[in-house]
Amino acid sequence: MAHDREFETLVATITARVREEMDRTSGAASSAPHGPGKPCKAGKGQCTGCGWSVSRRPHDTRKLIDLGAARVAANSVGLDPKLVRADLAGYIDHTLLKARVSREELRKLCSEARQYKFASVCVNAANVAFCSRELRGSGVPVCAVVGFPLGATTPSAKAFETKEAVRAGASEIDMVINIGALKSRDYALLLEDIQAVVNAAKPALVKVILETAELEHDEKVVACALSKIAGAAFVKTSTGFGPGGATAADVALMKQVVGDELQVKASGGVRTADDVDAMIKAGATRIGASASIAIVQGKKSSGRKRAGGGY
Amino acid sequence: MAHDREFETLVATITARVREEMDRTSGAASSAPHGPGKPCKAGKGQCTGCGWSVSRRPHDTRKLIDLGAARVAANSVGLDPKLVRADLAGYIDHTLLKARVSREELRKLCSEARQYKFASVCVNAANVAFCSRELRGSGVPVCAVVGFPLGATTPSAKAFETKEAVRAGASEIDMVINIGALKSRDYALLLEDIQAVVNAAKPALVKVILETAELEHDEKVVACALSKIAGAAFVKTSTGFGPGGATAADVALMKQVVGDELQVKASGGVRTADDVDAMIKAGATRIGASASIAIVQGKKSSGRKRAGGGY
Repeated sequence: MAHDREFETLVATITARVREEMDRTSGAASSAPHGPGKPCKAGKGQCTGCGWSVSRRPHDTRKLIDLGAARVAANSVGLDPKLVRADLAGYIDHTLLKARVSREELRKLCSEARQYKFASVCVNAANVAFCSRELRGSGVPVCAVVGFPLGATTPSAKAFETKEAVRAGASEIDMVINIGALKSRDYALLLEDIQAVVNAAKPALVKVILETAELEHDEKVVACALSKIAGAAFVKTSTGFGPGGATAADVALMKQVVGDELQVKASGGVRTADDVDAMIKAGATRIGASASIAIVQGKKSSGRKRAGGGY
Repeated sequence: MAHDREFETLVATITARVREEMDRTSGAASSAPHGPGKPCKAGKGQCTGCGWSVSRRPHDTRKLIDLGAARVAANSVGLDPKLVRADLAGYIDHTLLKARVSREELRKLCSEARQYKFASVCVNAANVAFCSRELRGSGVPVCAVVGFPLGATTPSAKAFETKEAVRAGASEIDMVINIGALKSRDYALLLEDIQAVVNAAKPALVKVILETAELEHDEKVVACALSKIAGAAFVKTSTGFGPGGATAADVALMKQVVGDELQVKASGGVRTADDVDAMIKAGATRIGASASIAIVQGKKSSGRKRAGGGY
């Protein structure tokens, strides 16, 4: 309990400092289209770093606060505060998708997500209800994968899975596209596939997994365009079970195609804070990772080659 | 056309010889519980090699005929008839489960199944309708995978997938168990999972994939027992996407647990006729393979390590 109070004091101190810094920065930014507290005219999603934008984006503010708090708190558990990257936690979907995962492992996953304030926990459909209960009151959402990892089920089966996951408490859905339909140039089926999940998911947001390592350049472009038409919230690179993971080049391409309205999630093979930084730099605003704890603690991951490796 | 006629003549000749041989054998088998044409009293599934049994099992008869016919016909396409193992075709589910499979590849798969008379084609749910159309009139059934390959969807989602696959033309369903439920000792959920698929599949038969490489000995035993309770037709070793494939020891164990009423399908890493022989010897009566053509042609497979490899 003493530790909790100490932590809260630290958070309060750092919050105050971050707010001061935000006010200072936004006040000084004379080239910004607006001042603090005034509506942003830069257009949806185009405003970065201004006070107004940050004050309207509590998630980003939380990331800044967590960064400071965690670096200070790191001392108390023997970590090098210079390496601790709790600022990344808000970007990361804390992910556990192996077939053999037990309740015990899921409980641990949720407890870690609660502690580090990850963006979500990302689990298989069968585990959504359990994780929703575990995370009650934490503010950490549950993200469910659908048609995972092959994407080779029908649009109606994916919609069924989606509805069930949302009913069980998921507020984010990561679906895999019908890769075979894309390879066969059946773009109408591909669109129907994504659309079925987006419609079934409402109000949950949908991330569309392309499995980029399986795709040619033009196929990636088509899949991104159709995801945008269908009203997805994100396009996402990889399942972690495919022949390759996220690359900065793929993230940049996807961001280029979808523009500002959709976000990009980089996943598969992201194991270190450096990996995360590279993906964010390329345009990702969400990261899928299993090595999330190692990432925020600034540790080198022992790293299997594939997230799904072995599975 | 001349070739077709020649082939038909060969088949007719061999059919006659096989029938003669069957009559001779069953007539001589004085220790058999019955003679040819008389009902077998040995009990369901327990009678082997008697004339009556074979005459009531046209599938087995076809295997014998195909063996002879293919060995003779092999000469005409430059294969070594001593190595050709078309006798194995009737055991093999000709399998293509990669995410990226195109219509063209599916068309080829079905054409091969039609030519070699494989036991079925085994495909992802999204491809069942297409393959059913391709195989119309061939007598080769379509087998659909469900909850594949992780098994980590809900019983109702698996049931939904199953019903849809059966409506689209599948007459066999290969489902993956909820491995996490088994690991968490939630045997009731595991049974519900299998039962939901068996009920939804009727009259299609269900094969229950255990993913043996993920399981301990006792877990394999439990999964086999529950598959039997649920009314499955087969237990099956592996998805081909997991950390390991079929072993003769696992096949023997599974056969031991399920007894005569259920069959065992060996899958994952079965790439040569020798592999198939070893699995059949251990108790398997069905084989899942992607290298099916190499197997029946008696060729050495170039062999990737995992059937799902690269997935």
